[in-house]
Amino acid sequence: MLADQQFLRIPGPTPIPPSVQRAMNQTMIGHRGQEAKDLIQNIRPRLKPIFGTGQDVMVIAGSGTAGLETAVVNVAQPNDEVLVVVTGSFGDRFTKICEAYQLQTHIINVPWGEAVQPEQIEAYLKQHPSIKVVFTTFCETSTGVLNPIKEIASVVHQLSEALLVVDGVSCIGGVESRMDEWGVDVLITGSQKALMLPAGLTFVAASERAWKVIKENPRPRFYLNLSSYQNKLQEDSTPFTPALSLLFGLDQVLNLIEEEGFSEVVKRHELMKNMTRSACKALGVPLLTSDETASPTVTAIKPGDFDSEQFRKTVKQEFGLTLAGGQQQLKGKIFRIGHMGYTSPSDVLQTISLLEMGLYRIGKEVELGKGVAAAQAVYLNQ
Amino acid sequence: MLADQQFLRIPGPTPIPPSVQRAMNQTMIGHRGQEAKDLIQNIRPRLKPIFGTGQDVMVIAGSGTAGLETAVVNVAQPNDEVLVVVTGSFGDRFTKICEAYQLQTHIINVPWGEAVQPEQIEAYLKQHPSIKVVFTTFCETSTGVLNPIKEIASVVHQLSEALLVVDGVSCIGGVESRMDEWGVDVLITGSQKALMLPAGLTFVAASERAWKVIKENPRPRFYLNLSSYQNKLQEDSTPFTPALSLLFGLDQVLNLIEEEGFSEVVKRHELMKNMTRSACKALGVPLLTSDETASPTVTAIKPGDFDSEQFRKTVKQEFGLTLAGGQQQLKGKIFRIGHMGYTSPSDVLQTISLLEMGLYRIGKEVELGKGVAAAQAVYLNQ
Repeated sequence: MLADQQFLRIPGPTPIPPSVQRAMNQTMIGHRGQEAKDLIQNIRPRLKPIFGTGQDVMVIAGSGTAGLETAVVNVAQPNDEVLVVVTGSFGDRFTKICEAYQLQTHIINVPWGEAVQPEQIEAYLKQHPSIKVVFTTFCETSTGVLNPIKEIASVVHQLSEALLVVDGVSCIGGVESRMDEWGVDVLITGSQKALMLPAGLTFVAASERAWKVIKENPRPRFYLNLSSYQNKLQEDSTPFTPALSLLFGLDQVLNLIEEEGFSEVVKRHELMKNMTRSACKALGVPLLTSDETASPTVTAIKPGDFDSEQFRKTVKQEFGLTLAGGQQQLKGKIFRIGHMGYTSPSDVLQTISLLEMGLYRIGKEVELGKGVAAAQAVYLNQ
Repeated sequence: MLADQQFLRIPGPTPIPPSVQRAMNQTMIGHRGQEAKDLIQNIRPRLKPIFGTGQDVMVIAGSGTAGLETAVVNVAQPNDEVLVVVTGSFGDRFTKICEAYQLQTHIINVPWGEAVQPEQIEAYLKQHPSIKVVFTTFCETSTGVLNPIKEIASVVHQLSEALLVVDGVSCIGGVESRMDEWGVDVLITGSQKALMLPAGLTFVAASERAWKVIKENPRPRFYLNLSSYQNKLQEDSTPFTPALSLLFGLDQVLNLIEEEGFSEVVKRHELMKNMTRSACKALGVPLLTSDETASPTVTAIKPGDFDSEQFRKTVKQEFGLTLAGGQQQLKGKIFRIGHMGYTSPSDVLQTISLLEMGLYRIGKEVELGKGVAAAQAVYLNQ
């Protein structure tokens, strides 16, 4: 195998663009000087269109989970009743955080691989009008489902005063997001997915309605106190030492997104999803999710007649193609292909061609080139 | 001024070695694959000698403050009486975190620029035997004082069952640390100081005694739950997505420290401190701290007859030399020179020579070369 060649096709971490690598290599600067202020000032307005908000997007040094916890400890007050919509392992993570913070945690469990139906939330909120916060996942990384956030926001706000918190970690930057228009109250993402950076930053934006709750929330918090970030951002600064190398990279990521045009970025992700799904269908490889609920950033495959773990090992060893396995209850039962961030339709063709050869290698009957042809047709007929 | 040349001489962030930059540029990998396991397994034992412990050192994605908060939420139980020793703004940060978490917070306030005397802690603990945790700072970044941790640990453990938590953010990796031998219960550091990395990682180690308290502590916590990190580290993994690019860099930082030899690294920092202080004395520039309490990693200067802010601006503009100002009550009253991490005695000579020219530029009477000569003499007579 050609040394140092990696095809990283998991739903995060994702490949880093060369110009972003170079940007992160910039000579280190002081974090309280004018260069750092200029950097933060330059980044600040350009995150808003990606979230679809007029609000500031806070940047915190930490994993995506730190972002989820930021939402929980800032908007949920002690003893609040909250509702978590669980469509996979990251919905489950919200449950664990809420339970760790001793919230009265209601759960809607959706079979993994399906999206929640807004009517389920509607019915639940009618029965439990005292729920203060609804937590849900936009793209459920573990299954490749994209939950209908616009419709969810609509039922939540029609029925209650509850805030809607959305984990957008594995899709924001690769899908359309209209936080303000839809009525999302807190939206979170991470750096290592569609935003094309290494892990280490989490991003959190809050609506006016959410800020009101945040400011009155007596819950103890310090590092993840969103108000501290908001206060310092007014001076183009941060309350704690920022992860500067990642901010250097973020600045260049925003250049790349603006150069392509954000609506084109969104279209590219939609196209990559359609190419991947058509290829799988052509090859007779069963998809975990329906066309209507599939995420543009990640596709899960649930093989009936071959071992997904043996398949993943084979393509990794022979081609350096890294695919993701299943998590928790789906462990060993599915594999997942990431197609987000620094990934193009051409990369999808390459991935499909390696997928076909991997299937051949593990002894599955496969018509070579058939998946590639299906994906090419999607590309050419768009 | 020569473009792209920066002399970053603040007490963190510090310059990044070129080989560490290159290491961070490595092609991104999956965070749950064998490469990531190998990386973590390779790093794990090599952090221990830097802390001076046989315990595992947990690596968390976040700023140094996230590390301080990790200590507070893991070892201090709700309603505990705790004692914070404040010798500057980072001692003060411990106070703020303890107060945010509604601990019964006692404070020993030491004049900024002085070290705490172990007898002060001894007397306080005698009067307040119910104190459960003592928080103190090793190197107080804001003043350049190195507190006598060995002696503090001795009085704390002689007198009480209290745990001793030490903020080592601005010195660990540049000073001798014997966590186990001295009896430090929790030791914290950050990546962007003596460890020569960008900001974004914090490191926390705990003693057996501390682990016992941590495991019985009912306080809600999730992202900063130290037990989650310990559990996953047994499998060479992490509970949440690790900041992989910084871990690539950390691996190479450890190579550099081992190549030089850690005891040599410690000697180099001691030498740079002595060179800097001798130069300041020769130039008649008053030092904030005494020789006995000065940190090997940062030197604070309290000018009597010139404006420190005007001086900092001048050396920044003309030479690209970034020095740190004072914080909180010392704002505008001092400036600070960082000499840690990727900084050599040769760099100290350069810094002193620019400091002399800066003093000349702002109109202070200065004998050019006198500070450099004093620093050279320290180097040659070592």
